Amino acid sequence: MQRIYILIFLLCCKNLQAQDYKKILIPYPQACSFNGARFPVNEGFTISVRGEPDKRIYSAATRMLTRLKGRSGLFISQQEVVPGAGTPGSGLLIRVTRAANNVLGEDESYHLVITVDGIMLNAETDLGAIRGLETILQLLKAGNGYYYLPGCVIDDAPRFPWRGLLIDVGRHFMPVDVIKRNIDGMAAVKMNVLHLHLTEDQGFRIECKAFPKLHELGSEGEYYSQDQIRDLLHYAGERGIRIVPEFDMPGHTTSWFVGYPELASAPGPYHVEHRLGVMDPVMDPTRESTYTFIDSFLGEMSKLFPDEYIHIGGDENNGRQWKRNPAIQLFMQVHAIHSNNELQAYFNRRLLAITEKYGKKMIGWDEIMQPGIPTSAIIQSWRGMEGLARAAKSGYPVILSSGYYIDLNFPASDHYLTDPLPDSLHLTTAQRKLILGGEATMWSEMVTWETIDSRIWPRTAAIAERLWSDASVNSVPDMYDKLERISPQLEELGLTHEKNVDMFLRRLAGNENVAALRVFTDVLEPIKDYGSIDYAGYTTGSPFTKIVDAVRPDAKVAREFNILVRNFAADSKDAVSEKKIRQWLIQWKHNHLALRSAFRQYPAIDDVEMLSRDLSVISVSGLEALDYIRLKKHPPLLWRSRVEKELQQASIPRGMTEIMVVAGIRKLVERAEGYF
Amino acid sequence: MQRIYILIFLLCCKNLQAQDYKKILIPYPQACSFNGARFPVNEGFTISVRGEPDKRIYSAATRMLTRLKGRSGLFISQQEVVPGAGTPGSGLLIRVTRAANNVLGEDESYHLVITVDGIMLNAETDLGAIRGLETILQLLKAGNGYYYLPGCVIDDAPRFPWRGLLIDVGRHFMPVDVIKRNIDGMAAVKMNVLHLHLTEDQGFRIECKAFPKLHELGSEGEYYSQDQIRDLLHYAGERGIRIVPEFDMPGHTTSWFVGYPELASAPGPYHVEHRLGVMDPVMDPTRESTYTFIDSFLGEMSKLFPDEYIHIGGDENNGRQWKRNPAIQLFMQVHAIHSNNELQAYFNRRLLAITEKYGKKMIGWDEIMQPGIPTSAIIQSWRGMEGLARAAKSGYPVILSSGYYIDLNFPASDHYLTDPLPDSLHLTTAQRKLILGGEATMWSEMVTWETIDSRIWPRTAAIAERLWSDASVNSVPDMYDKLERISPQLEELGLTHEKNVDMFLRRLAGNENVAALRVFTDVLEPIKDYGSIDYAGYTTGSPFTKIVDAVRPDAKVAREFNILVRNFAADSKDAVSEKKIRQWLIQWKHNHLALRSAFRQYPAIDDVEMLSRDLSVISVSGLEALDYIRLKKHPPLLWRSRVEKELQQASIPRGMTEIMVVAGIRKLVERAEGYF
Repeated sequence: MQRIYILIFLLCCKNLQAQDYKKILIPYPQACSFNGARFPVNEGFTISVRGEPDKRIYSAATRMLTRLKGRSGLFISQQEVVPGAGTPGSGLLIRVTRAANNVLGEDESYHLVITVDGIMLNAETDLGAIRGLETILQLLKAGNGYYYLPGCVIDDAPRFPWRGLLIDVGRHFMPVDVIKRNIDGMAAVKMNVLHLHLTEDQGFRIECKAFPKLHELGSEGEYYSQDQIRDLLHYAGERGIRIVPEFDMPGHTTSWFVGYPELASAPGPYHVEHRLGVMDPVMDPTRESTYTFIDSFLGEMSKLFPDEYIHIGGDENNGRQWKRNPAIQLFMQVHAIHSNNELQAYFNRRLLAITEKYGKKMIGWDEIMQPGIPTSAIIQSWRGMEGLARAAKSGYPVILSSGYYIDLNFPASDHYLTDPLPDSLHLTTAQRKLILGGEATMWSEMVTWETIDSRIWPRTAAIAERLWSDASVNSVPDMYDKLERISPQLEELGLTHEKNVDMFLRRLAGNENVAALRVFTDVLEPIKDYGSIDYAGYTTGSPFTKIVDAVRPDAKVAREFNILVRNFAADSKDAVSEKKIRQWLIQWKHNHLALRSAFRQYPAIDDVEMLSRDLSVISVSGLEALDYIRLKKHPPLLWRSRVEKELQQASIPRGMTEIMVVAGIRKLVERAEGYF
Repeated sequence: MQRIYILIFLLCCKNLQAQDYKKILIPYPQACSFNGARFPVNEGFTISVRGEPDKRIYSAATRMLTRLKGRSGLFISQQEVVPGAGTPGSGLLIRVTRAANNVLGEDESYHLVITVDGIMLNAETDLGAIRGLETILQLLKAGNGYYYLPGCVIDDAPRFPWRGLLIDVGRHFMPVDVIKRNIDGMAAVKMNVLHLHLTEDQGFRIECKAFPKLHELGSEGEYYSQDQIRDLLHYAGERGIRIVPEFDMPGHTTSWFVGYPELASAPGPYHVEHRLGVMDPVMDPTRESTYTFIDSFLGEMSKLFPDEYIHIGGDENNGRQWKRNPAIQLFMQVHAIHSNNELQAYFNRRLLAITEKYGKKMIGWDEIMQPGIPTSAIIQSWRGMEGLARAAKSGYPVILSSGYYIDLNFPASDHYLTDPLPDSLHLTTAQRKLILGGEATMWSEMVTWETIDSRIWPRTAAIAERLWSDASVNSVPDMYDKLERISPQLEELGLTHEKNVDMFLRRLAGNENVAALRVFTDVLEPIKDYGSIDYAGYTTGSPFTKIVDAVRPDAKVAREFNILVRNFAADSKDAVSEKKIRQWLIQWKHNHLALRSAFRQYPAIDDVEMLSRDLSVISVSGLEALDYIRLKKHPPLLWRSRVEKELQQASIPRGMTEIMVVAGIRKLVERAEGYF
């Protein structure tokens, strides 16, 4: 009998452990079991490599060792991982069968076994081993005064082969170090494609030797030299990440026309665009000289970028310049081209021939899916799941970006629950195989080098899990737990998503005393979606250093407060939740007083002063609601209408930010009113 | 009568204002008066340039505009400063007479007048104008809901022409972006020389085309390509900063010998050094092949670096390899060279000939001051003021580094009060002119790319003021006020000295809840000076991510606490100070309890657990002392001996950090005992 109890107890422990690790590994592996053993990590820890890997495994393992030291503070004596180094018995033994090619579909699987005696990481390729190293780092735990790796058997491989992040360096340029640290962040969550959106109306961001006026006149001095690109390619390759360059054509091309106005469909002169939005300038697809130019240009770029794919954009051409140009209209008549869509299809077919000539496959946005474009081209779907399904049904490989627009400030949960292959799609098995994966898109209208990390991370880790792990891994609370754990680990790589929050507050306040400002801004988020984000008042040169830029999506304090209220609403005897809710409300109630002088002193934050006042006002009402609930007293009618007005007032965004605890306080008020 | 009162009142206001600005501008200008006027800065603010400047003034002014927008949140409509842009009446008018050369002694003066009608910045050269732009940015103030620049007349020029920062990229490599943001920081406080210590036992950090094994085998992959160096030179030049390269010879050269062991005075093989300290390997100065090698090498480097100076190091050769090498001993006999010093002088004379051949002037550390070295060489004095005086008296130009060793974690006040030209030196006017200035030295034994900013800033701003401003500008409290104000401004440039503190705490704790850890670490500082910093346990690959790396010199909370105690000790009726002292002590007393579970959870911080306990213990005693003082009661004898033991215990550094409030609490205890 006693034995059975012990057995049940042990089984519970084991389940509890598995549950525990569900909240740690991101992306969660395909198969994973924990056995309660521990491999202690101490100063004698070593890493050794066997087999026939590409040499990048050595630098990857050395970087992993450095991060392990940094995180644990352990003076591990091994300095670097080199061929033949390490004592297999005393730590991690990596076995790799062959060197990987950094191409779409390469084997990224790995097999990890941790026992009390050591760690075995086996992989077909060094790419798989590099993915496994990140899993090991995430497993590191501390307890009873020492660090250890938990005993486990993990079999892992990605669900989708294309797990990308698009960074738009056109609208706001991002220096090399920003790209590098984001490459490291991607590798930490097993992403494998960096899509660089290199050209835009607002900037041409890459050196072109054939047509130097492209970068010289089109970038205001902010572009990557080809040496820097080679450096980035090497850096990404070392981490098992492909770089796919995008040269968006025929629209989004104002910056090309500054140096080469003859490419455009309307006479110049052109200037680098500072405004944001969809612009008229578009290439002239009717002149042969346009294709001669593109041929030379793509020839040069095809040599620079080794990847087999090249992205030609193809989105958001409003067609105005074409309509107004008589020569283009005549060309359409002569060639029986009946619409701008058909004209763009003609343009794309010409581009396709050029990319094929240079041995490249073409990718483009939804719009390129037109008659004559063969199914070797990949469609990147930004306009919705229907476009994705249509592409796959038409036989095109397709990657999903709709639902992964991280520039729009939606919570991570929204992206997390967007599956590229939901059952609702009704695709055949062959069609399902055409869904290659997805890409988070970091458009840069509203971000700079200082804020971009906070828009990408940690939310992109949730998308990374969606694209790597099984569709059944979809618990939102677990996901938020994992984001919270991975966030300081991402900081090891230089990412600034956490640390720049206080930095902005210090800058706006002009000093270090930002505690009250932080209490306030901790419940704010930037407003969401294209509909409400107001580009109109902004240019590329506007200050992106205000409160809206300091605060981040997924305001943690607000999310936790709203959960507390949900718990309390479900069970008004939940005294623990009630107490915490009360503490928050009291803090917010008084905080405005602490901040009032700050608002007077620092005009840079006065656009959100009203929000601080509103937060204080609704917190008072929230406290009153708590009292009514506790006293089981029905609130008077006048109270209800007053509070409703306050809540409506507090729901109005100011300075492009909004208070995220209005929902929670409204729930309290409704509870007090007996609505649920 | 009333008029006289008003006049007195206005005069007081004016004095008060001048006093106020003393606490703002760093470095403080040579001549400076404020008149109470205000030029409001709003969206219509423009910058225009007149005269014949180098074109770098336009990018400098554009950067200044961006920082002005970022700090104020103002949507200033001007996008960039280009020739002919701006409306002189609506903002800043820059007038420059001629383009500057970026050489030692170039005119950096500027004249700034701010009235209600506009801002006039006049300078002989664009360098002077660039310095003036930083003054304007520092002047920006907010009040009554708007930003303004205070009316003033400023005449400014540097006291010394050489105001440098040495960054040692040899022992720990610093990526390009780390160097760039520090160049920006230097420019913000008007420094003008970046001294790059490029080669060390632990790494050869620059690409060499003539001898590629130098960087290929000597750097473990961490070096600057020549393209990156050119990029850095351009970046520094744009900001009016010279880059002086150092190739330290004949010692500190292990990394050279990995690829070229034939240069050494003892047979190889050599490996990149991972230990820290002074090593034996030294070049063989007796073989002609050594000089052929150095000739080719310095020839290549002389072309790459445009500056007229080249630093050949020359320090810390322990001579052991020379003593043990019979061929070298024979050479010395044959050539009547009687000591290692004389042999090194021979070596230096050979180097001098090579540098002169390439049109360069030589700089070296104290040790190069030997017979035969002409007074065209500059001596960099690291061994003390006597060396400095001796150099000047011998006719050498000299720069001071002794007293500016920022790697040793001394408080800013120590560096601030080190004057390169104190009256005590007794030099002639001609000799005084030989003192060119000074250099802060950021040796990198114990720092990495993550911590270097926190060792350089904001303390180096105090050294920058010492080297730019008049010797009479020497108020330590004002200096600390200015450091506190400049610190968030330096963050605009990407510097991480503030924001990496919490980052490290989050990493060590593995999560975001670091409030209690921060309360504790806010009174800690890294230990100071070579005597106590223990290199022995460290290698270049050790973790530099522990509490000692998170905390910084000049712990602000500790400094303020100790000042409070000083005030209270002088006047025990000072109830305000007493109350604040009590609040701190109570917080520290309880904080250890909050942290105890953290110490158990995170072994990475257990090296400082004892300090947390000690802080709690002495805080209790401090509270008891406060009570004795208030009650005017003499403490019992046993209390005194117990507390003395506690204080001694709390003075012991742990994990290479120390508690900085022991002095303050000791003062309280002594006051209670009636010792003062």
